[in-house]
Amino acid sequence: MGIHKYFRSLNELERIIRCPGKFKFEEHSVAAHSWKVVQYAKTLADIEEKHGVSIDWKKLYEITSSHDYGEIFIGDIKTPVKHASPQLRQLIQQVEEGMVYNFIEENIPEEFKDIFHNQLREGKDNTTEGLILEVADKMDQVYEAFAELQKGNTEKEFVKMYRQALIKIKHINLHCVDYFLNHILPDMINDEMMSSVDIRRITEEALAPDFIEDSCKPLV
Amino acid sequence: MGIHKYFRSLNELERIIRCPGKFKFEEHSVAAHSWKVVQYAKTLADIEEKHGVSIDWKKLYEITSSHDYGEIFIGDIKTPVKHASPQLRQLIQQVEEGMVYNFIEENIPEEFKDIFHNQLREGKDNTTEGLILEVADKMDQVYEAFAELQKGNTEKEFVKMYRQALIKIKHINLHCVDYFLNHILPDMINDEMMSSVDIRRITEEALAPDFIEDSCKPLV
Amino acid sequence: MGIHKYFRSLNELERIIRCPGKFKFEEHSVAAHSWKVVQYAKTLADIEEKHGVSIDWKKLYEITSSHDYGEIFIGDIKTPVKHASPQLRQLIQQVEEGMVYNFIEENIPEEFKDIFHNQLREGKDNTTEGLILEVADKMDQVYEAFAELQKGNTEKEFVKMYRQALIKIKHINLHCVDYFLNHILPDMINDEMMSSVDIRRITEEALAPDFIEDSCKPLV
Amino acid sequence: MGIHKYFRSLNELERIIRCPGKFKFEEHSVAAHSWKVVQYAKTLADIEEKHGVSIDWKKLYEITSSHDYGEIFIGDIKTPVKHASPQLRQLIQQVEEGMVYNFIEENIPEEFKDIFHNQLREGKDNTTEGLILEVADKMDQVYEAFAELQKGNTEKEFVKMYRQALIKIKHINLHCVDYFLNHILPDMINDEMMSSVDIRRITEEALAPDFIEDSCKPLV
Amino acid sequence: MGIHKYFRSLNELERIIRCPGKFKFEEHSVAAHSWKVVQYAKTLADIEEKHGVSIDWKKLYEITSSHDYGEIFIGDIKTPVKHASPQLRQLIQQVEEGMVYNFIEENIPEEFKDIFHNQLREGKDNTTEGLILEVADKMDQVYEAFAELQKGNTEKEFVKMYRQALIKIKHINLHCVDYFLNHILPDMINDEMMSSVDIRRITEEALAPDFIEDSCKPLV
Amino acid sequence: MGIHKYFRSLNELERIIRCPGKFKFEEHSVAAHSWKVVQYAKTLADIEEKHGVSIDWKKLYEITSSHDYGEIFIGDIKTPVKHASPQLRQLIQQVEEGMVYNFIEENIPEEFKDIFHNQLREGKDNTTEGLILEVADKMDQVYEAFAELQKGNTEKEFVKMYRQALIKIKHINLHCVDYFLNHILPDMINDEMMSSVDIRRITEEALAPDFIEDSCKPLV
Repeated sequence: MGIHKYFRSLNELERIIRCPGKFKFEEHSVAAHSWKVVQYAKTLADIEEKHGVSIDWKKLYEITSSHDYGEIFIGDIKTPVKHASPQLRQLIQQVEEGMVYNFIEENIPEEFKDIFHNQLREGKDNTTEGLILEVADKMDQVYEAFAELQKGNTEKEFVKMYRQALIKIKHINLHCVDYFLNHILPDMINDEMMSSVDIRRITEEALAPDFIEDSCKPLV
Repeated sequence: MGIHKYFRSLNELERIIRCPGKFKFEEHSVAAHSWKVVQYAKTLADIEEKHGVSIDWKKLYEITSSHDYGEIFIGDIKTPVKHASPQLRQLIQQVEEGMVYNFIEENIPEEFKDIFHNQLREGKDNTTEGLILEVADKMDQVYEAFAELQKGNTEKEFVKMYRQALIKIKHINLHCVDYFLNHILPDMINDEMMSSVDIRRITEEALAPDFIEDSCKPLV
Repeated sequence: MGIHKYFRSLNELERIIRCPGKFKFEEHSVAAHSWKVVQYAKTLADIEEKHGVSIDWKKLYEITSSHDYGEIFIGDIKTPVKHASPQLRQLIQQVEEGMVYNFIEENIPEEFKDIFHNQLREGKDNTTEGLILEVADKMDQVYEAFAELQKGNTEKEFVKMYRQALIKIKHINLHCVDYFLNHILPDMINDEMMSSVDIRRITEEALAPDFIEDSCKPLV
Repeated sequence: MGIHKYFRSLNELERIIRCPGKFKFEEHSVAAHSWKVVQYAKTLADIEEKHGVSIDWKKLYEITSSHDYGEIFIGDIKTPVKHASPQLRQLIQQVEEGMVYNFIEENIPEEFKDIFHNQLREGKDNTTEGLILEVADKMDQVYEAFAELQKGNTEKEFVKMYRQALIKIKHINLHCVDYFLNHILPDMINDEMMSSVDIRRITEEALAPDFIEDSCKPLV
Repeated sequence: MGIHKYFRSLNELERIIRCPGKFKFEEHSVAAHSWKVVQYAKTLADIEEKHGVSIDWKKLYEITSSHDYGEIFIGDIKTPVKHASPQLRQLIQQVEEGMVYNFIEENIPEEFKDIFHNQLREGKDNTTEGLILEVADKMDQVYEAFAELQKGNTEKEFVKMYRQALIKIKHINLHCVDYFLNHILPDMINDEMMSSVDIRRITEEALAPDFIEDSCKPLV
Repeated sequence: MGIHKYFRSLNELERIIRCPGKFKFEEHSVAAHSWKVVQYAKTLADIEEKHGVSIDWKKLYEITSSHDYGEIFIGDIKTPVKHASPQLRQLIQQVEEGMVYNFIEENIPEEFKDIFHNQLREGKDNTTEGLILEVADKMDQVYEAFAELQKGNTEKEFVKMYRQALIKIKHINLHCVDYFLNHILPDMINDEMMSSVDIRRITEEALAPDFIEDSCKPLV
């Protein structure tokens, strides 16, 4: 039916919710996740460039923005299943790739087939761009899990997700990983430490006769 | 950790939404679906009993109420994936059964292990109870898809789901299938035929000086 | 209109939310609640059987799965109203039973009327099955209220619901009540005790150079 | 505990959804409904004033804004139940009034008790203000039901709600009822008549080389 | 098109959610907010009357119920934007007033134009009614922010909203402000202090052999 | 506070819903919209490249992914407001740019300031990349509005949005615009034409004794 069929299908990723089954205070669609991965990857690549690494921006663009497109066909198969056996993992990946392949063959006009086959390939290879995608994808797990834990979510799943994402990231050898571990992660943790709120004190301060709201002083 | 772990986990099936990705006017959780299957199966079994077939109610109870419990471990793997290759289908079923098996071994106290292994086995065998479960499960697909089509949902997925469920049902040889096809399905279709509403006429009727609401006359 | 009318109406119980008005982190439909009651009752009856009590599984099946069907007609009338006066309580029950009765008379075909009148009767009598239903129904209140309190819900309603359900359960004389009080409830409480999460420590552990994710060690 | 307890409780009416159980495209809370009734009543009273009728605005203010407050205590008891028998209806009203009475006695400071008893009384009496409240309340049923029917909702409940509200309104003898029937209702019906959209035509028009968006021409 | 167009548009304020973007445990529509402001204002005016101040109830009715109607045209423009520069603030207010003006001129019948222009004017002037509206509006910010903080929301926005609303209120010179600061606010704070729940203790108490639920004793 | 503050803030765009106030069958967050714009722009740029136009992929990456970031600060100011007067429009844009500027100055580390100022600038200039962003942004309005109209949404807003987006697109002089108008848009319209479903026929076909599901034949 043409490229319209592809564009129309993007809508489905707005309706697939990550981490189905587990209680969460905030739900995230695969579409919103994909967009945040695009954003993280942009900054991670900027950091690499500052260290003199050269980036293929077109490649980075296509692998980050499309990296979860296959979920339209296979849904959200939980990580433990994917990893239950090397054989199963490989088969599921084969099926996913086969379905993406068939989708392109059946729907995309001849002249665009190569572009789409390239764009929708598995992007997490060992190039700088592939590794940045892996870091950015895991960073979003860190952010999602952190936000749940910070709100008091007691599902062990989020402790696990947070921990495994950090472990994965720390083993990737990129300048931007150093930056994440040394600058971004500490800010995130400190954020948490300041988050408890003493309502009584805030009330008393606000009602003090001479209190003037000062946008420069810390709020909590 | 004991049976508490099992009871607590049921909550997850309230959060897994059927048919993820597709637009729908109404969402259905796996928990609500399971309950409706229990209800349909009860009546289907009643119909069999009326025809002199004897029912093992304990077996019917356990296989219908638990029939989708495995989705806690494998999530909602889309039907096309499950059927992409006989080999994949078999592997996925092996993994699902393995995960249920491990859950029981790790969490359920020794004295209850047999009960849970029995209860959480695949129930769709060729016994009357297994076939009733298959019919009831497909009937809920018919009801879900019908309600979407009736509201004007244009996702082809629901035409497909409706059609495939009917085809599956019609090939099962049970008294209750005859009853469904000859009495329940025609009522459903007629329901649809009566559903368009002429607001102007209703308004004029209601405002007529001598109009008296009469609960016996047809409403639309 | 036939049994279709009954099956179609089940859908309404997916849309009636328990405990309306109160703030809650998780909403539960009457349909999902009914399904969990079916599941609890299954295990409670298994426990009775292990102690040599004989169970009428067909009866248990029908009274548990249909026990809140009347809410389709009367909505969710809050407990304090139901109990405001013995006279009112009795009248409301009469109305509910009258409406169920009329629904069956008007919609269910002659040959099935007895089955439906039997299935939709009030099930909480003093038989083993009736008492199991009462325990299972109250157990779901315990689970629902506990999950809210654990997440920090400060609505007093849930303290009350939790307390009253426990009191009701402890006064019922069944083997499965002993099991619940001695094995399931303690696991639930201990669950709660372990639920606070130290994000900073988890982060430091995960980043330690020699840390290896070990699925056997406790997660929190 | 004081007036705070009353103010805090208003929040519950944001969470009670009207017409529970029935499928609807849009949900309306009792709080939002109450606000719209306040708005309709304002204009209805303006119309009466234009015809020389004098309005007690303080009374109108208190009876319209608080008219469904009792639902906090009794929840949403469905209309058929309320009217199942005159005896039941009277009893339920007694219970509701008793619970409101007790709430005031237990929570509202002595000096404000009279004000709250007055404000939370049943407002639908035969005064102009009481009748305006009745019209405004029914008008919101007309608007809610109309919006569902217009979107293609096939639940007969909304045909019934629409019809019964119109019948109730037409029998009330006020100038503003004439205005509603002769000016507002016809606009509503005409709205509906114009609502079908021809996407192909709109597309072709928009793409015509000389098409200029003109905010004055009709859009559909 | 007439007054129908105005009544129909009220529906939009049920769909505009306050404080967009920020994480919140509970969402509030502008419609529900408007209704609560109507309720607070009623009691605040009652307090003024008790102190001998005379209230124009018709004016209070119209300015409180319609005070956020303009958001239909301008959406929810965030406070920092509105106040970014005095020039911008004034321009935005001009635009909002212009759009309300045009709406009335284009849609409201000649005979009602004055009434609507009056009703939809900016109501927060320096009259008693205008000041009561300002207090009631800020009180709802206090209630909304408090409820988030109490549930553990760590968004600094709600600390800010809570603090700024209190500061605004304390500078308004009305009898009802004294009452709010001396009676209502302390009850709210004390509410918070009692809100932590000890699940283990409640469980043990409930299971004690001689425990009887006593509705008079404090629940937490 | 560093780049963490920027990454954390992306979350807010998952909670800002486009087109607030209007009834819609499907809600779209600004985050999901941004991701779809990234996807459309990728293909549009591919089409330009096929025609020999050279693309600055890094620039396209940053302007498309960040193009609505400013909505975090100014919320969703409705289009009619933005365009009410050239003076207001310019002022609002100044405020938005000022707030983004301040955010960067206050939060982003010195060494990254230039990168962020560049990334978060207004991207819709007259370069190929800027024009592609404009087309992609309007294409998403076409898709959003079309999906509402197709489901029977009668809000005139969506007719307007659809029409204005098409008009805007047709006046942009790019190869990809030709492709969109000649290939993608016609597929979209044809999609609509086929969308009505005849449930009775589908049922009869499915129940025909010799019916075999054939994935190649058209479904509706």
